[in-house]
Amino acid sequence: MDKMALAQQVGETMYANDRATRETVGMDLVSCEPGRARMRMVVQDKHLNGHQTCHGGFIFTLADSTFAFACNSHNHNAVAAACSIEFLKPAQLGDVLSTEGVEQVLSGRHGIYDVKVSNQRGETVALFRGKSAQIPGTVVNP
Amino acid sequence: MDKMALAQQVGETMYANDRATRETVGMDLVSCEPGRARMRMVVQDKHLNGHQTCHGGFIFTLADSTFAFACNSHNHNAVAAACSIEFLKPAQLGDVLSTEGVEQVLSGRHGIYDVKVSNQRGETVALFRGKSAQIPGTVVNP
Amino acid sequence: MDKMALAQQVGETMYANDRATRETVGMDLVSCEPGRARMRMVVQDKHLNGHQTCHGGFIFTLADSTFAFACNSHNHNAVAAACSIEFLKPAQLGDVLSTEGVEQVLSGRHGIYDVKVSNQRGETVALFRGKSAQIPGTVVNP
Amino acid sequence: MDKMALAQQVGETMYANDRATRETVGMDLVSCEPGRARMRMVVQDKHLNGHQTCHGGFIFTLADSTFAFACNSHNHNAVAAACSIEFLKPAQLGDVLSTEGVEQVLSGRHGIYDVKVSNQRGETVALFRGKSAQIPGTVVNP
Repeated sequence: MDKMALAQQVGETMYANDRATRETVGMDLVSCEPGRARMRMVVQDKHLNGHQTCHGGFIFTLADSTFAFACNSHNHNAVAAACSIEFLKPAQLGDVLSTEGVEQVLSGRHGIYDVKVSNQRGETVALFRGKSAQIPGTVVNP
Repeated sequence: MDKMALAQQVGETMYANDRATRETVGMDLVSCEPGRARMRMVVQDKHLNGHQTCHGGFIFTLADSTFAFACNSHNHNAVAAACSIEFLKPAQLGDVLSTEGVEQVLSGRHGIYDVKVSNQRGETVALFRGKSAQIPGTVVNP
Repeated sequence: MDKMALAQQVGETMYANDRATRETVGMDLVSCEPGRARMRMVVQDKHLNGHQTCHGGFIFTLADSTFAFACNSHNHNAVAAACSIEFLKPAQLGDVLSTEGVEQVLSGRHGIYDVKVSNQRGETVALFRGKSAQIPGTVVNP
Repeated sequence: MDKMALAQQVGETMYANDRATRETVGMDLVSCEPGRARMRMVVQDKHLNGHQTCHGGFIFTLADSTFAFACNSHNHNAVAAACSIEFLKPAQLGDVLSTEGVEQVLSGRHGIYDVKVSNQRGETVALFRGKSAQIPGTVVNP
């Protein structure tokens, strides 16, 4: 299987098994390619915090899931070791948040991935950086 | 009202209005004191990711909400500007996660808060650091 | 003056006044453009730590100075509020380290800049992210 | 040898071999104990940047060296994998900066260390967090 098709299959398999991402938070996987992923989430009532804006935890979770797809896309199991996020603009009810995650470095077992979260006006809502560590196993049978 | 009672009232008010924290993720507020907060979450099915462990996004959200209570506890509205998290141990279904958030610095409009996330065995699951920025307004009428 | 010429003049002025960067650490400014900068440093004896590799503090300083040129390049004084760095490969005596710093977001008074530090073999030595805050004043007379 | 004496010996050995820390930047090692270290630096002309304040790179380097002593104090070689720093107050010529670094977690090969940088008035200048990775070897013969 070529790398592009493998990454897509990894993405679909992970997404199907990830109840937190799919149901609890309600994010869509837009694409999963080698070292890259895109996701999408519409801000709903269930995402609102006490300021009636999207809880930063869900903006983080959206970026973190994007990172997870990107860093598992090579079909080596990988987990998050550390992440940082800068919150630049609040997200409001009804906003459509889109992410783009890109592998910056993959060296041995460790990788670094940057994820940008944008709203429907193209404004940057958050910048996220995640550091991954590979662990034994694969997402799909190789 | 003394500072301790004010912080407690701020915590209860924020928690009551924060649907994301209370319902969607399902976290309990244990205490809110001046510059400090404690929370608790039991890892449920809805928190599991594709590896069948607690999605890191919810561990982050638990720490981030703890940070939010601690940085709003003085009854000046404050929001998260940036956060970082180190994931040290995975959390499994049924684990009871407890947090302790402590103000490290509050200087002008900006504060730094450290949150430790532990499991029921006292192991550190994650370390979180959040940077807050005060915005106009108060949580409860002063 | 056009923006490109202004950024170059800002860079030259800052560099001339920055004894730490120029003499103590011994870094060269390669270019300063609007929102971007490049620097260069050869690892010398004076940069070595107890493991006889380049002290991470100087790798950070190289990235931090690159960030400073990039975030001051618009001729509004700006300072670092927070930085993070991932160390990916050690740098050895004689290595030639090059940086490229790029503005990711500039929104109001705050900006985010990413800096990559590479060695002479094109390997990534470190990834740095800096957050700037503008303060009153300009670098050169406007 | 007991752990306290071993940590002290590790500290003295590392410091003697670390030209960057000792000479180029000019920092003093105040103490090295198991999982902890303290350092000190007086801000000199050679530390000044173009704003005529201490270059943030040296504040980082001071914290980073403190972290290095703390994470090597158990006499297992360890290096920095990632660091973050929050700059809270500028440091001026003549300021006396003191650090205190404390191990937060040491789990397997990885540790997390927090370092606070204060000035002579007891104000917090910066907060630093470092993540270490152990590598083969020891600092002193066991």
